[in-house]
Amino acid sequence: MATSNNSFLERTFSHIRLAWREATDNRATLERLNLSPELSNDDEAILRTWIDHCLADKGGEIASRARAATLGQSYLELDPIGQQRFLSILAMHYDTNRVDVEQYIERWQEASDDSRAEAARQLRNVLEPPRMKLLTLFNELPEGIKFLVDMRAQILSLQKQHPELKPLEADLKRLLISWFDIGLLQLEQINWHSSAELLEKLIAYEAVHAITSWDDLKNRLDSDRRCFAFFHPNMPNEPLIFVEVALVKGLADNVQTLLDESAPVGDIEQADTAIFYSISNAQQGLAGISFGNFLIKRVVKELQHEFPHLKQFSTLSPIPGLTRWIHKQPAEELEQLPGGKALLPHIQDQALTLTTEQLAEPQLKAPLIKLATYYLAKAERVGGTAADSVTHFHLSNGAQIAQLNWMADTSVNGLNQAAGFMVNYLYDLPNIEKRSQAYLSQNKRSLSSSIKSLLSS
Amino acid sequence: MATSNNSFLERTFSHIRLAWREATDNRATLERLNLSPELSNDDEAILRTWIDHCLADKGGEIASRARAATLGQSYLELDPIGQQRFLSILAMHYDTNRVDVEQYIERWQEASDDSRAEAARQLRNVLEPPRMKLLTLFNELPEGIKFLVDMRAQILSLQKQHPELKPLEADLKRLLISWFDIGLLQLEQINWHSSAELLEKLIAYEAVHAITSWDDLKNRLDSDRRCFAFFHPNMPNEPLIFVEVALVKGLADNVQTLLDESAPVGDIEQADTAIFYSISNAQQGLAGISFGNFLIKRVVKELQHEFPHLKQFSTLSPIPGLTRWIHKQPAEELEQLPGGKALLPHIQDQALTLTTEQLAEPQLKAPLIKLATYYLAKAERVGGTAADSVTHFHLSNGAQIAQLNWMADTSVNGLNQAAGFMVNYLYDLPNIEKRSQAYLSQNKRSLSSSIKSLLSS
Amino acid sequence: MATSNNSFLERTFSHIRLAWREATDNRATLERLNLSPELSNDDEAILRTWIDHCLADKGGEIASRARAATLGQSYLELDPIGQQRFLSILAMHYDTNRVDVEQYIERWQEASDDSRAEAARQLRNVLEPPRMKLLTLFNELPEGIKFLVDMRAQILSLQKQHPELKPLEADLKRLLISWFDIGLLQLEQINWHSSAELLEKLIAYEAVHAITSWDDLKNRLDSDRRCFAFFHPNMPNEPLIFVEVALVKGLADNVQTLLDESAPVGDIEQADTAIFYSISNAQQGLAGISFGNFLIKRVVKELQHEFPHLKQFSTLSPIPGLTRWIHKQPAEELEQLPGGKALLPHIQDQALTLTTEQLAEPQLKAPLIKLATYYLAKAERVGGTAADSVTHFHLSNGAQIAQLNWMADTSVNGLNQAAGFMVNYLYDLPNIEKRSQAYLSQNKRSLSSSIKSLLSS
Amino acid sequence: MATSNNSFLERTFSHIRLAWREATDNRATLERLNLSPELSNDDEAILRTWIDHCLADKGGEIASRARAATLGQSYLELDPIGQQRFLSILAMHYDTNRVDVEQYIERWQEASDDSRAEAARQLRNVLEPPRMKLLTLFNELPEGIKFLVDMRAQILSLQKQHPELKPLEADLKRLLISWFDIGLLQLEQINWHSSAELLEKLIAYEAVHAITSWDDLKNRLDSDRRCFAFFHPNMPNEPLIFVEVALVKGLADNVQTLLDESAPVGDIEQADTAIFYSISNAQQGLAGISFGNFLIKRVVKELQHEFPHLKQFSTLSPIPGLTRWIHKQPAEELEQLPGGKALLPHIQDQALTLTTEQLAEPQLKAPLIKLATYYLAKAERVGGTAADSVTHFHLSNGAQIAQLNWMADTSVNGLNQAAGFMVNYLYDLPNIEKRSQAYLSQNKRSLSSSIKSLLSS
Repeated sequence: MATSNNSFLERTFSHIRLAWREATDNRATLERLNLSPELSNDDEAILRTWIDHCLADKGGEIASRARAATLGQSYLELDPIGQQRFLSILAMHYDTNRVDVEQYIERWQEASDDSRAEAARQLRNVLEPPRMKLLTLFNELPEGIKFLVDMRAQILSLQKQHPELKPLEADLKRLLISWFDIGLLQLEQINWHSSAELLEKLIAYEAVHAITSWDDLKNRLDSDRRCFAFFHPNMPNEPLIFVEVALVKGLADNVQTLLDESAPVGDIEQADTAIFYSISNAQQGLAGISFGNFLIKRVVKELQHEFPHLKQFSTLSPIPGLTRWIHKQPAEELEQLPGGKALLPHIQDQALTLTTEQLAEPQLKAPLIKLATYYLAKAERVGGTAADSVTHFHLSNGAQIAQLNWMADTSVNGLNQAAGFMVNYLYDLPNIEKRSQAYLSQNKRSLSSSIKSLLSS
Repeated sequence: MATSNNSFLERTFSHIRLAWREATDNRATLERLNLSPELSNDDEAILRTWIDHCLADKGGEIASRARAATLGQSYLELDPIGQQRFLSILAMHYDTNRVDVEQYIERWQEASDDSRAEAARQLRNVLEPPRMKLLTLFNELPEGIKFLVDMRAQILSLQKQHPELKPLEADLKRLLISWFDIGLLQLEQINWHSSAELLEKLIAYEAVHAITSWDDLKNRLDSDRRCFAFFHPNMPNEPLIFVEVALVKGLADNVQTLLDESAPVGDIEQADTAIFYSISNAQQGLAGISFGNFLIKRVVKELQHEFPHLKQFSTLSPIPGLTRWIHKQPAEELEQLPGGKALLPHIQDQALTLTTEQLAEPQLKAPLIKLATYYLAKAERVGGTAADSVTHFHLSNGAQIAQLNWMADTSVNGLNQAAGFMVNYLYDLPNIEKRSQAYLSQNKRSLSSSIKSLLSS
Repeated sequence: MATSNNSFLERTFSHIRLAWREATDNRATLERLNLSPELSNDDEAILRTWIDHCLADKGGEIASRARAATLGQSYLELDPIGQQRFLSILAMHYDTNRVDVEQYIERWQEASDDSRAEAARQLRNVLEPPRMKLLTLFNELPEGIKFLVDMRAQILSLQKQHPELKPLEADLKRLLISWFDIGLLQLEQINWHSSAELLEKLIAYEAVHAITSWDDLKNRLDSDRRCFAFFHPNMPNEPLIFVEVALVKGLADNVQTLLDESAPVGDIEQADTAIFYSISNAQQGLAGISFGNFLIKRVVKELQHEFPHLKQFSTLSPIPGLTRWIHKQPAEELEQLPGGKALLPHIQDQALTLTTEQLAEPQLKAPLIKLATYYLAKAERVGGTAADSVTHFHLSNGAQIAQLNWMADTSVNGLNQAAGFMVNYLYDLPNIEKRSQAYLSQNKRSLSSSIKSLLSS
Repeated sequence: MATSNNSFLERTFSHIRLAWREATDNRATLERLNLSPELSNDDEAILRTWIDHCLADKGGEIASRARAATLGQSYLELDPIGQQRFLSILAMHYDTNRVDVEQYIERWQEASDDSRAEAARQLRNVLEPPRMKLLTLFNELPEGIKFLVDMRAQILSLQKQHPELKPLEADLKRLLISWFDIGLLQLEQINWHSSAELLEKLIAYEAVHAITSWDDLKNRLDSDRRCFAFFHPNMPNEPLIFVEVALVKGLADNVQTLLDESAPVGDIEQADTAIFYSISNAQQGLAGISFGNFLIKRVVKELQHEFPHLKQFSTLSPIPGLTRWIHKQPAEELEQLPGGKALLPHIQDQALTLTTEQLAEPQLKAPLIKLATYYLAKAERVGGTAADSVTHFHLSNGAQIAQLNWMADTSVNGLNQAAGFMVNYLYDLPNIEKRSQAYLSQNKRSLSSSIKSLLSS
């Protein structure tokens, strides 16, 4: 995992390196630092002098940007050790200046009513670590935004071993939150007319049901499907998040059926339901910056406009935490849960990875359905939110838990994580905001009548 | 001026109102506040409750955005008095909370080395006025960014009479600086193939040499001209700043010649010089957020790429402060300045608005040239920077004062402001950064040999 | 007219000359003929040798195309006399070879049933004048198609004085009919987002109600208007024909109202009628090649798709032949026509150019309405088709004569041509083909009940 | 082969059927013929009545186009037998009318000098079979041009068994030649940014070196490669012909090296040679309509513009007829040819399909090289043109036979057809036209010094 992540970063960094080299070939004035790949101690001194230079406001913004270009290029030429050392220097030596803060706290405390707003502004400024300015300077470079996104991905993968990087990661996140504000993003449809360059990335980034080939991808972009993504205007070929939708008749209850390339193309005139069957975040460096709720809402609107005869909008979602949760329950507690007693003998001392044959046994089906329903509708984390992260995501967005589907994902992953179960979350536009608030403020989960009757059975 | 500004704002606001109405027709859930146009005291209470609601995080971000849409629409339906009251409410009641700040100052002061970064982050957060969040929420609306830009233009025009709006203006500026960072902008060429909608705006926004007709505009976009502008991806038809360039042989020394529609189109193959003869900021709401230096530098690069045989890049610039400065000099001081003694009789008790006939008199020409040269090369503001704002702008960007041109702009405006003088500032790419630093850090102005010899004569 | 036409041709030819010069700068091998501008007798010999060379198939198609480029460029460098002589040479010396035709007629007559199709093909080939091949060769040049279109415009303006050009004109027309077949054209909407370069051409090409300024044009492209044009893919900035449509409530009966820039923009939600108030052919060189019927039909479909609530599609058309026709009627015949007797005194020995004041007299209105109705509904050319060319055009396309409008065009032109009358032709989609056939095969004109009752009154 | 062709046609026809159904859903007036799939004798009568109706000019062009739409749709709903019968009806019953021709021959013979051109025009018209008009009417339908292209492909595959279709095929070819004239086509670059829909077709249409996967394709579109195609504006996603180019250092002499996906990407800055290593016609229905010569010439110009440092432009071409030709030579004649005697024992009674191991034997290499050189430089068809079709193609275009490459294509196909040989044809721009003429008019082949010395050795 670590390696695959690194090789991924290496690829995009090498792409950016190329773009910068081209761009800077014309900058006759671009100086080079010639650091050693692993950033030796001597180099560290050179580097810090250069950064100080870059942050000093003396030469004006154009000079600062030119120096930042030198710095960015130097960074890309370092090896992984050197890059980590570079980041640690930024994290440790370019933090907020404590003495300044103390001074401006005093000023704020002594400010008159008239000057307090200005004093607050100044205090906020000195609380800003100097490295923030440096990070901002990178954005004018070609692919500069992507560079910062990937730098954050890199820090996230490093910070367990290098906790000193955490404040730097927090700064970068704050910067990216401001630039990736939902109002600055563009929703675009992706289809078979899209460029191969972009489609190739869908294959790479799909995180829920892996795309196994170009034929698989083509099937997901056929005339009875839709795919939408958010883009940032400065990263035109990089989807931030994308969702795959099938237009079908009735609630789809099995994902293998949807993904079957040999199945005939559906008749879009007959479709009354849009099924959101896969939603993937594409940028590791934007982890924790949420677009999913806006994406679903915007796509529902697009689909309503294109297909006025659609009657319901629903997901077909995995339940990634189900079997893990079951195993975590102490035997005595599991016994008390719906279906728990009947299941207990089957899961003693073993992972709940049942084969499709085992699942087909009647004595397992009924208790598993009971327990899964309980998990979705009742199981809680500390604070009262839904135990499953996907459930929590959709309830927060205002969806309803609509239908539990037995044997709906019989892939290895589907059996491992959720004993083959999947669930439909329903997005009912007039009720979305009301349900979202009810869940967020009072932990109330909206349940369909079918789920309610499973619960009470 | 105030009226023209207001009517300008009214036009764009009415355009935005239309865009929002369309967008929100589909939002069945959009509530309406039904405020009175002038925002009565009762309405103020309704408004504040709604804002509080909008800022409370209870319902999640989607609900907040929906409420902000209601708020934005209500704002646009107010009359000018009501809008000013709305803004004043934002400025006065949604400022930083003082008690919170005191509490977090204490936490920061008591923080350990490990937790100080986090404490600084939290202190920065509470220093942020709550209205900032509200402003950000508007950006998802169609034309939302343009709405905020124009709102700042409105505040700028109001804040002399309503100084309580200043902190709100400062917040808005900070927000816009982050979104309009140079790295997020796109440079685009504008020509006769551009849309009429865009070209119409050039006519409206040109601030240096007014565009008098579509024929005048077409002349400025002919095959021996170039025009470039910066755009923000979320304001696609709104130039932020644009520059007009003529490709000529030798340094152009007269702007009427350049603007003469009946003159034959220049032979671009023979051109060795690019003359930047007009640069206009197009958005009043982005006042004080600087793009000009980047625009010139980027355009120089574009031109170098398209026309490798160009040898020099220069402006043909007005000297807007010249006659005003002359008049401000006390007689006894003016007498000491180069050319001052000879001029004194001509400017006693009258504005230095000379007709072209008067300027043609030989006894005026020589002393005026001496004085104008002194003004450009020596006259200072407090702090040692150049007295003229345009001179200061180009020297900051790394240009050289290259050539003073007699009778170069004989329009009424040109005669009034600068006795018909114009000046060429030279952008010599290899020396730009060095010159910019010399000026910014030591107030050193780069002068051509011709200017030097005028000075010493 | 001749001069304006010539100056128009000169402008586009000079544009094409420029495009070719650029394109051929890179063709190191392009030879030049260096003919005298007026094409002397000596030059004629050079020219004919070169054409023979060009038509000889020896060197393959690439060489032929290169020689045609030389020829085209030489043509553009001739003066008007030289160009006419060039065309006359083509017309007279590169016609069908009579001896060949006789030989292949014989072959066809002697052909067996099996070989007759091939013999017909060969006979057709030898009937094709050699100059056709030459004309075709020009199309690969940049703007080559436009060159041929304008060459035909030029021949059309010359052929009265130079009847020897007629067969050449007929060949060119045949070639253009094949390339401008309706299936190869593209319908595009034109609006305020279109390029200034294209919009400028609308102003130049509008033939019915002159566009007087960019403001007038903007009014015609406002949100309650639509404008569509056909384009050929190889002439992307040149509309072939365009139509201007107003979306209004009820049948519009006055064109000055529609063109009034100061009138408020209509509410498109309330509109139930699309009024086609201007349709202009833009290319003189495509005279006699008809697109109008297809344009109207396609635009009706586009509008139905965009505005499903539109209930009727109608023109507001001039009656260009009305007053001319009245004057041509012998007094004794006019007396017999509806309204004729009452009008006779007013039009004796004078043009029927009535002022709006005269038209306002009640004794004129009634008889004029009667006579105009008769003209539209009954007056015939030899063969039984409608007397008015515009009436004939719309009836051929399947329209109905729907409403006669008094004082509907009070411009000088409107009063001169039609005593201020205009007429609405109704396009009722389900009946278009039936009506078109009834008119084309039996001369039956479809009349609305209001026209019928005017007729019978 | 026949089946694959049919399934190919079925696919595109079914695509067109879909497009028409959509388009005609809105045509309330579209009638349906409801023919039986195999077109029974009764249906034939219905069909002929309908066609007569369609060709009769009574109802005007709009009605004719509507009837043609009905006809086209009926055609697509027939089964293969029915379609063939439909085509045969067109071929046999809508041919030139013999009596009309005789009448107009007479008129032409009797025409005066003044009226002869017009009489020729009329005779040409009656020689045109009525079905030509019908074919033309299809072009306004969506995908109408593609429909006609594929209809010709279908006729070409049928006409061996149905020779009565030949005149219809000839008509269709004539129509397509006029619409696909080189001047109406657009050259476009294809790369990894192109749509997947288009790239998928490259994979399907590549005819020289099969594209085995999307990775193979991506390698051929990498930064050291270029791919260009001609398109018709009415068939935007259908390449007509495309060429693949590698930018390398020196003449590439092995195609497997070029196609090796694992080879590193070449350094484009170092490249001095453009190698055209594959050129494929994509539309079977355009067989015999030549674009290849124009494509190469245009691409050479594009490359010269993008990479001014390129020094030579060359193909790396197969020699498809080599082994077949060798086997056709009678033993006594082969013995007289260069290398023939040495080879004779190896090819007695067997195909010359040598394995790479056999080819590696030294006693084979020298005589094979001699014989292959002779084949390229001397072997003739009747009339004196080059024996190999590829050689003939490039010599006609003005290329030089530059270099023979041993073991250059060791794929099964390469060994079968040409014993692994490939050849470079050099395109030297200043000499192209001269060489093309020398070959086309005198059969002179341009040979490089290396080929000459191989010949004389």
